[in-house]
Amino acid sequence: MKLGRLNHIGVATPSIAKSIAHYRDTMGATVITEPFDLPEQGVKVCFVDTPTASGMNGTQIELIEPYNESSPINGFLAKNPAGGQHHLCFEVEDIDAARAHFEGLGKRILGPTRIGAHGTPIFFLHPKDMMGQLTEIMETPKVDGGH
Amino acid sequence: MKLGRLNHIGVATPSIAKSIAHYRDTMGATVITEPFDLPEQGVKVCFVDTPTASGMNGTQIELIEPYNESSPINGFLAKNPAGGQHHLCFEVEDIDAARAHFEGLGKRILGPTRIGAHGTPIFFLHPKDMMGQLTEIMETPKVDGGH
Repeated sequence: MKLGRLNHIGVATPSIAKSIAHYRDTMGATVITEPFDLPEQGVKVCFVDTPTASGMNGTQIELIEPYNESSPINGFLAKNPAGGQHHLCFEVEDIDAARAHFEGLGKRILGPTRIGAHGTPIFFLHPKDMMGQLTEIMETPKVDGGH
Repeated sequence: MKLGRLNHIGVATPSIAKSIAHYRDTMGATVITEPFDLPEQGVKVCFVDTPTASGMNGTQIELIEPYNESSPINGFLAKNPAGGQHHLCFEVEDIDAARAHFEGLGKRILGPTRIGAHGTPIFFLHPKDMMGQLTEIMETPKVDGGH
């Protein structure tokens, strides 16, 4: 498997509204998407765009707020009430090949492959098998006209 | 202040050698710099390059191992023995203007502005003032010929 683009950094927050204000007013972000719910994943999310030398297609910050009482990020927020860095998400060209790669290495995969916040298939790997990093693997979106 | 490029994600590790093997063999990274010591900062670091659509200038992963017993990341590793995500680093055009911006907002800055791993001035902001995220601010390197 070849390392793909670092698509986003997941940041858990007790308040997506406060985190948006933080990135806008304190950090100077200019492009932040509207929050939307992912009920099946138990989270509300939005994305903060970051610039590159050539545009605004840098690695995004994904802000993640619990959607309900059974949200998978409630445990993280119980330990980190102010929020904080939660996971890293790398792109791959072929999600099935990537899953087979990690399974072949004996890495624990957390649940089935499912559709993630960008509308492409994703899965998560157990942080204890990934040097302490909760790692999301995401199939690269097929964008018409790409960049 | 305007949000700059997400330069790197700092990842603490008990063993930079094991983390390099992880990023090379498990994650498929192809460009990883040689580790080097930053004794004044109490850390040994190296960088994993990630791709963008147009090349290898994506947000980097900075692997950070303690340099000695007084390393500032020893506390983090005591709580997270396997390692994990430690900080986010954003670029700014003018480090002095950025420092004045954050000071004006009442954000706690951790120590003086100093030279960081990329050879440009940096400072860190207290995670309790930054929605739980230890945040490094770094002046953009002036690269001849750019990219």
